Amino acid sequence: MKGAIGIYGFRVMGENLARNIESKGYPVTIGNRSVEVIREFMEGKGKEGKFIPAYSIEEFAASLEKPRKVMLMIKAGETVDLTIENFLPYLEPGDTLIDGGNSNYEDTERRVQYLEEKGIYYIGSGVSGGELGALYGPSMMPGGNKEAWAGVKDIFMAIAAKAGTNGEEPCTTWIGNGGSGHYVKTVHNGIEYGDMQLISEVYAILRDVVGADNEEMAKIFSTWNAGRLESYLVEITSEILNEKDETGEYIVNYILDKAMQKGTGKWTVISALEEGEPVTLITEAVYARILSSMKSERVAAAKGVEKPRSLAEKKDTVDLLEKALYAAKIISYAQGFSLMKAASDHYRWELKLGEIASIWRGGCIIRSAFLNDIRAAYEENVELKNLMVAPFFRTELEETVKGLREMVILGIRNGIAMPAMSSALSYYDGYHTENLPANLLQAQRDYFGAHMYERVDRPEGEFFHHNWSGEGGNTASTIYKV
Amino acid sequence: MKGAIGIYGFRVMGENLARNIESKGYPVTIGNRSVEVIREFMEGKGKEGKFIPAYSIEEFAASLEKPRKVMLMIKAGETVDLTIENFLPYLEPGDTLIDGGNSNYEDTERRVQYLEEKGIYYIGSGVSGGELGALYGPSMMPGGNKEAWAGVKDIFMAIAAKAGTNGEEPCTTWIGNGGSGHYVKTVHNGIEYGDMQLISEVYAILRDVVGADNEEMAKIFSTWNAGRLESYLVEITSEILNEKDETGEYIVNYILDKAMQKGTGKWTVISALEEGEPVTLITEAVYARILSSMKSERVAAAKGVEKPRSLAEKKDTVDLLEKALYAAKIISYAQGFSLMKAASDHYRWELKLGEIASIWRGGCIIRSAFLNDIRAAYEENVELKNLMVAPFFRTELEETVKGLREMVILGIRNGIAMPAMSSALSYYDGYHTENLPANLLQAQRDYFGAHMYERVDRPEGEFFHHNWSGEGGNTASTIYKV
Repeated sequence: MKGAIGIYGFRVMGENLARNIESKGYPVTIGNRSVEVIREFMEGKGKEGKFIPAYSIEEFAASLEKPRKVMLMIKAGETVDLTIENFLPYLEPGDTLIDGGNSNYEDTERRVQYLEEKGIYYIGSGVSGGELGALYGPSMMPGGNKEAWAGVKDIFMAIAAKAGTNGEEPCTTWIGNGGSGHYVKTVHNGIEYGDMQLISEVYAILRDVVGADNEEMAKIFSTWNAGRLESYLVEITSEILNEKDETGEYIVNYILDKAMQKGTGKWTVISALEEGEPVTLITEAVYARILSSMKSERVAAAKGVEKPRSLAEKKDTVDLLEKALYAAKIISYAQGFSLMKAASDHYRWELKLGEIASIWRGGCIIRSAFLNDIRAAYEENVELKNLMVAPFFRTELEETVKGLREMVILGIRNGIAMPAMSSALSYYDGYHTENLPANLLQAQRDYFGAHMYERVDRPEGEFFHHNWSGEGGNTASTIYKV
Repeated sequence: MKGAIGIYGFRVMGENLARNIESKGYPVTIGNRSVEVIREFMEGKGKEGKFIPAYSIEEFAASLEKPRKVMLMIKAGETVDLTIENFLPYLEPGDTLIDGGNSNYEDTERRVQYLEEKGIYYIGSGVSGGELGALYGPSMMPGGNKEAWAGVKDIFMAIAAKAGTNGEEPCTTWIGNGGSGHYVKTVHNGIEYGDMQLISEVYAILRDVVGADNEEMAKIFSTWNAGRLESYLVEITSEILNEKDETGEYIVNYILDKAMQKGTGKWTVISALEEGEPVTLITEAVYARILSSMKSERVAAAKGVEKPRSLAEKKDTVDLLEKALYAAKIISYAQGFSLMKAASDHYRWELKLGEIASIWRGGCIIRSAFLNDIRAAYEENVELKNLMVAPFFRTELEETVKGLREMVILGIRNGIAMPAMSSALSYYDGYHTENLPANLLQAQRDYFGAHMYERVDRPEGEFFHHNWSGEGGNTASTIYKV
C-alpha cells in the first residue's frame, strides 16, 4: 500500500486532517519530526486504518504514490523553509508540496517561485475550521502553482466541508496563483477577529449593562442563531456561556480576560495599510486583543475611576443588539472583501469573491448563513465596489444601522469600550458622506508643507498651492500618492 | 571660504534650511542633483550670503571644512542609498553624513551600520516644521552614530527653534542610536495625523451640525488657541478658516475633501502593530485619509441615504467640543508616547520621553503648550506606564472625558463620522476597565482551536484547555505570544 498523500506534522491539525483523508478511503502516509507521536498513534487510533507510518523523511517520500503529494501541517515561519529543504533531496520534478499551515502569504509567494525553479509544484493552502474542522471537513483555500491542482483536487473536494441546500458543494476551490490561498486565509482570520470582537462587545453590554446572567445570554445567542445571525461563532458562544465545570460553575466566568493572538489579524491590518483600504473594524479588533492583554495596567488604571451608568430596557436592548451585531458584521465583511479586491488587483490574482464567500459557508470558523447573501451579491455584480452598496445589504443596513447607533451610544453612556462597533459606524457614516472635513486637512497640509490641494470647482488632478501665511515661498512641494 | 556644513538637495526644505544655517553665521555649501536651481538661487536670494555653490559632488566635498558634514535634504527611499553611494568616493573616515529627510527608520538603522563599516558617521535626523520651520527654526531629532553629534551639535542648536519661558531652549537633542531619530520623527508625524484628524472632526461638527460659518469657526479656534489647546495646528486652522481669495470667497470651502499622505502615518501604525501597542487614534486618522480619498465611491454611496439629524445648542456644543478635543489629544499622545516607550525597549534606544516632549515644543507641526505638561509628567516619573495615569492628566481627563462622550454621541446622532474621537474614547474606556469581555473571546479560541486560557483563580502563566463540545480531543494547541 502506498500513500495517496502524506501528512507531515502530526499535532492536532495534522492528525485530524490525516484521519479525515483516511476516512474518505485514501491511504495516508503520516510523519512527524519527533516520531514518538506517530508510534503512539499507530498503536492507538491509527491501528485499524489505512495509515502508513514513516519514521524518517526518506521513508515518508518512499511510501508515497508518484507523483508525490506531501502536505506540511507544521508551524508557520522558518520551520517551513527548513522542512522544505529537508524534503527536497527526496522529491522529484512533478511532485507537489502543500503547506497547510497559517503561513504568511509573502512567504508562500516566495516559496512557489523557489520550488517552481526546481520543478516542484507548491501549494499554499489556508485550512480553516480548527481541530474539528480538520477532522470532519475544513474549508480549504489552495493557491500557488495551478498545475498541481488537478492532482490534489479530488482529495481536497472529498475532505472539505460541504455546504449548500443539498450539502453537496465542497468548501474548497482553486483560489489563484502565488500566495493568494494563504492571503485569503489571512483575511478570513482577520474577519474572524472582527466577528469575535463584535460578539464580545455584545456580551459586554449584556453582562455589564443589561445585567443578564449566563443562562439568559446563552438563550439570546441561541435565538439569534436561528435567524439572520446564524453562524458557527454565535452558536458556540451560546454553548460556551452555558458550559459548567464539575463543581457547577460557569467556566467562562473564570477565564482571564487576556486575549492572545498568533499574527494573521496583524497581517491583515498591515496588508490593509499597504493596499490603502480602511479595514478599521479588524484593526480595532486586533488592538482590542492587545489592550486586553495589558491586564495589570488596566487593573491599576481602573482603580478609583468611576464608570458612568445609564440603564437600558432589557427587551429593547436585546433587539437593538441583534441589529447592531448584524449591521456591524455587514460593514466588517464589506471592509474585508474590499481588501481582497484591492490585493487581487495589486497582485493580479483574479480572486473570485463570490466563490470565496461560497467556500467559507462551511467548515471554517466564520461559516454563516450570511455568506450566501454575500455570494449572491457578487453573483449579481462581479464589479461590486463595496458590499454595503449591494442592493440587498443596502436595504439591510438601512433597517439595522439605527441599532448600531443606539448600542454604541449605550456603550459610551456606560463606559463600555466598543471599539469594533464604533469603528464600523464611523466607517459607515464616512463612506456615506459626500463632503468630509478633509478639505480642512488638505488646507493644513498646504499651509505648513506646501503639499497642494485640488479644488471642487476644477477637474481632479489639477493641484493648487496658496501662500496662506504670506510668509512662505510660492514653491509648492511635490505630490506623492499614498 | 569653506562650508561649515553642506546641504545637498535644494527643494523647499533644503533651501530654507541652508538659509537658516547661513543666517546664523555659518558658511554653507549648497548642491543639488540638477544644478539649475543652485545657479538660480545664487543669482537671486543667495547672492549676498555666505553660500558656496557646488555644481558637482566632487566640488561639493572639496568645498567643505574637514571633517566634512554633509546633510542630505532629498526624497526618502532608494534615492538616499544612491546619493550615499555617489558621495562615498569623496568622503573620508571621520566625515559625517546626515539624512534630514523623512526616511524610514529601518532604512536609517541599516545605513548607520553600513557607513560605520566605512568609518563614516551617519545621522538620520527628523526635521519638522515644514518650509517655515526649516527657515526660521525647526525641531530636529538626530539619531545614529553618537560620535558625530559633537561635530554638528552647535549648528543644530543654533538653527533649531527655541522654546521655554525664556525662549532659550533649543528644540533639538541627541535622540539615540540607530534609526531612533527617524523613528521619533515618524511617531511625531503619526501624532500630527491624529491632531489634524481630531481638528477636522471638530470642524465637521461645527460646520455640519452646529451650522457655524467660517468666521465663527475661526473665532472659536482662535479662542481655544489662547487656552490649554494652544498649538500651531489650532492656530493655523483659525487662519485657514478666515482666508479668502481675491474674489472674497473662503478658500477652504473650495478645497476638495480628498486627503493625501506620504507614508509616515502608515509606518507609525505598522510599528504599533509590530510592537503590540494599541495606537488606535493615529490608525483611524490614517484610515480616515484613505476613506476621504475615495471620493467618487462616497458620492455614489451617499446618494439617497438620509443622515439622521439631531440638533445641539451652539454654546454648549462649543464648550463640549473644546473638552472633547483636549481629552482626545491627551489620549492620542498617551498612545504615541507608549509606542515610543515600547520601541525604545525593543531596540534599546533608551529614549528620554520627557526630552522628546521638550524638543517638540517649538519648530515642529505639533508644537503646543500641552507638551510642557507631558514633559513635566515624565520628569515626575520616568517610568510612567501611560500618560493617562499621570496625576495631572488623570485629573484633566476626569474633567473632560464627559465632553468627549457627548461629542461622539452627537456625531453618531447626526451621521457624522468621528473615527479618531470614537477610537480615543474606546481606548480610554478599555484601558480603565478591570474586566473586559475578552474572557469570552479566549473561550472561543479554546473551543475551536484548543488555544487554552488562563484562569482568574490561578496564577498567570498557567494554561487550561476545556473540551467544550465533547467532540474534540483533549490535545491542546501550543501557545504563541503576539
